[in-house]
Amino acid sequence: MNDPAPPPSGPLAGVRVLELGHFIAAPFCTRLLADLGAEVIKVEPPGGDPVRQWGRQVEGGGAPWWSMHARNKQSLVLNLKHPKAVGIVLDLVKGCDALVENYRPGQLARMGLTRARLDAARPGLVVAHVSGYGQDGIYRDRAAFGVIGEAIGGLRYLTNHPPEASDLPPVRVGVSIGDSIAGLYAAFGVAAALFARDRRGGDGRGRTLDVALTESVLSMMEGMLPEYGAFGTVRHPTGSRIATAAPSNAYPTADGAWILIGGNSDPIFERLTALMGRPELAADPRFRGNALRVRNVEALDALIGAWSAGYAARDLDRMLAEADVPATIAYTAAEIAADPQFRARGMVREVEDPAFGTVLHAGIVPHVPDDPGAIRWPGPGPGAHTDAILRDALGLSPGAIAALRNEGVVA
Amino acid sequence: MNDPAPPPSGPLAGVRVLELGHFIAAPFCTRLLADLGAEVIKVEPPGGDPVRQWGRQVEGGGAPWWSMHARNKQSLVLNLKHPKAVGIVLDLVKGCDALVENYRPGQLARMGLTRARLDAARPGLVVAHVSGYGQDGIYRDRAAFGVIGEAIGGLRYLTNHPPEASDLPPVRVGVSIGDSIAGLYAAFGVAAALFARDRRGGDGRGRTLDVALTESVLSMMEGMLPEYGAFGTVRHPTGSRIATAAPSNAYPTADGAWILIGGNSDPIFERLTALMGRPELAADPRFRGNALRVRNVEALDALIGAWSAGYAARDLDRMLAEADVPATIAYTAAEIAADPQFRARGMVREVEDPAFGTVLHAGIVPHVPDDPGAIRWPGPGPGAHTDAILRDALGLSPGAIAALRNEGVVA
Repeated sequence: MNDPAPPPSGPLAGVRVLELGHFIAAPFCTRLLADLGAEVIKVEPPGGDPVRQWGRQVEGGGAPWWSMHARNKQSLVLNLKHPKAVGIVLDLVKGCDALVENYRPGQLARMGLTRARLDAARPGLVVAHVSGYGQDGIYRDRAAFGVIGEAIGGLRYLTNHPPEASDLPPVRVGVSIGDSIAGLYAAFGVAAALFARDRRGGDGRGRTLDVALTESVLSMMEGMLPEYGAFGTVRHPTGSRIATAAPSNAYPTADGAWILIGGNSDPIFERLTALMGRPELAADPRFRGNALRVRNVEALDALIGAWSAGYAARDLDRMLAEADVPATIAYTAAEIAADPQFRARGMVREVEDPAFGTVLHAGIVPHVPDDPGAIRWPGPGPGAHTDAILRDALGLSPGAIAALRNEGVVA
Repeated sequence: MNDPAPPPSGPLAGVRVLELGHFIAAPFCTRLLADLGAEVIKVEPPGGDPVRQWGRQVEGGGAPWWSMHARNKQSLVLNLKHPKAVGIVLDLVKGCDALVENYRPGQLARMGLTRARLDAARPGLVVAHVSGYGQDGIYRDRAAFGVIGEAIGGLRYLTNHPPEASDLPPVRVGVSIGDSIAGLYAAFGVAAALFARDRRGGDGRGRTLDVALTESVLSMMEGMLPEYGAFGTVRHPTGSRIATAAPSNAYPTADGAWILIGGNSDPIFERLTALMGRPELAADPRFRGNALRVRNVEALDALIGAWSAGYAARDLDRMLAEADVPATIAYTAAEIAADPQFRARGMVREVEDPAFGTVLHAGIVPHVPDDPGAIRWPGPGPGAHTDAILRDALGLSPGAIAALRNEGVVA
């Protein structure tokens, strides 16, 4: 951090957030807050957040994910097991608007960071707790594994081929999406709570956000629960299809990639069958209208798949675009990195990182064109800001900081 | 709506939002805003939002999903193609804090609802646009199909078995998760923009949120993009496993359900092998430590699967819980509805709906224990609030309302 960073920009500029987080959910929440301009102090244990080593690492250690996951944050290494740590956290809280944490429920209070002490340090502090199952109830002390929480929220059961197509287990989506969704809900809650507190005529009160991974996932499950309540019917997996629309599927290509085609409206289906050189299919009594196409989807998908398998994925992608049929290759990282739309909108950005060289970051969502956030710096090394924070936020002298370091309180 | 509804509660109480939305993304955004207390006026076309008919319907029409998707909202049926409609929208905007829409990019302006006219009607209006690809760029006019956008964001490619395990296509997660994630990002953006506008010392400015489904999905993809940038390596699907942790998988049971087990720390793995009656496996040189377990995961998963297949899912669930091994049945709607934790925390709620009887709703996320939102009423019939809105918000007389109805402007 030798170059002075640009000042924070975005709707949350001026907000200060303390993160007592690790792994994914709380740090993803604070990444989003920081992307929109909040100053985030991330408290890390000696050795750093374990997520620094998640995924493929460079020689000497460190995973490029960190560059994005911790961007714009200040890193303070603090040994929360040391008796002096709680006082330092409370001193930091005095200057903060919000605290975001994802320790096990009750752990903060056991460390001495009770709500009463936090409120005394900073009346009006917004506190976001992110956990697997919530801050109360009979499951609250269960280990918050993402794969477990996603299954309890109902996502995993549906992410599967129907039993007649496969006896393989339901698929994981490839990322810990439940953690990230919970983090996003927490960010929404923090912004809403700050608004309620600080709006003109606001009540100045801090609020508590109690965000559970299981519940965050459940809230995305559309009509699954209302249908069960109304009809007693359980929704079952439909594999790569949509139960109520056809054709809509992933189809094979000559080079092994999958192409998604959404051809389920009548005009699009006509364009698709014309492109296939099979215009008569649009008038075929099996395929006239979406309802009949859904009923005869096996036959229809077999016809489309036999056609698509004759072309390379890139050629299909181009042909379908020219025919105005919604379609895409299933993007890998390579297609994402090369996509002109992502590049033009700053959603794939090259960020120089002293630890990793040029790293690609996803951009800032939501995009706020008239007040954009910024990537001010990539994820810092552990304790990169320890001295600056203790000096600027707590007013400690170099000698006092050195003493804390010698005692093993900070690093 | 004969009973007077309770007053709005939650951090966004007092905020007024106009929704020009349909399908999932924008209406999901406003559901979240309304859950936290915002008043939402939903503008529907004659006949209503098509999502009223999505999923299984009751006799006479109407899907129970609507009960949840449109809860707490006021429905105004307005024919946006009628020349008088734009004036009514602008009059409504005068009393609103935010506008949320998901028409095709540019459509609002083509209808006469340019940013300049919106700002003139309500200086400081926050405007959230939700779309497939964003409000600018070469893809902006593409049809915003959720399955296409999720594939462009990188989610679909990874939601698959590895090619050596299956030649079936990558799986859809069973819901339009990209739409819901985009809606959640928009809700976060609206709250942040309201904060920036209205905080003490705030600038009073409206802000624009330009939320794309593709970008919302991409932002959840963890280290996929940074790794590609740093190493040039493309992340590939790992099916039901986690690439870097073992054992963590969905395992078969005697009754056909799947059980998720996360046994990838050494102490948990010891407890799991003891429960299996195979304590020697914890000391097996193939399985000592997570790294070796990952290397020999096929053999390990075969052993665990052979064991799990001998028990009914419910028995396994109980046995694993007693042994303190993180695990769960892959919940269907039935397990979700019966789950005591969801019930105790209000995350599965019975809501009386005049159209559907007792409907189960997912609760309010984020949970704000010291300022909870509320489910004030279920999704209303089309135009249920037309008269009240025209009378209370626009001050129209019964005669003026009747005239607008006769002209086909409202319903």
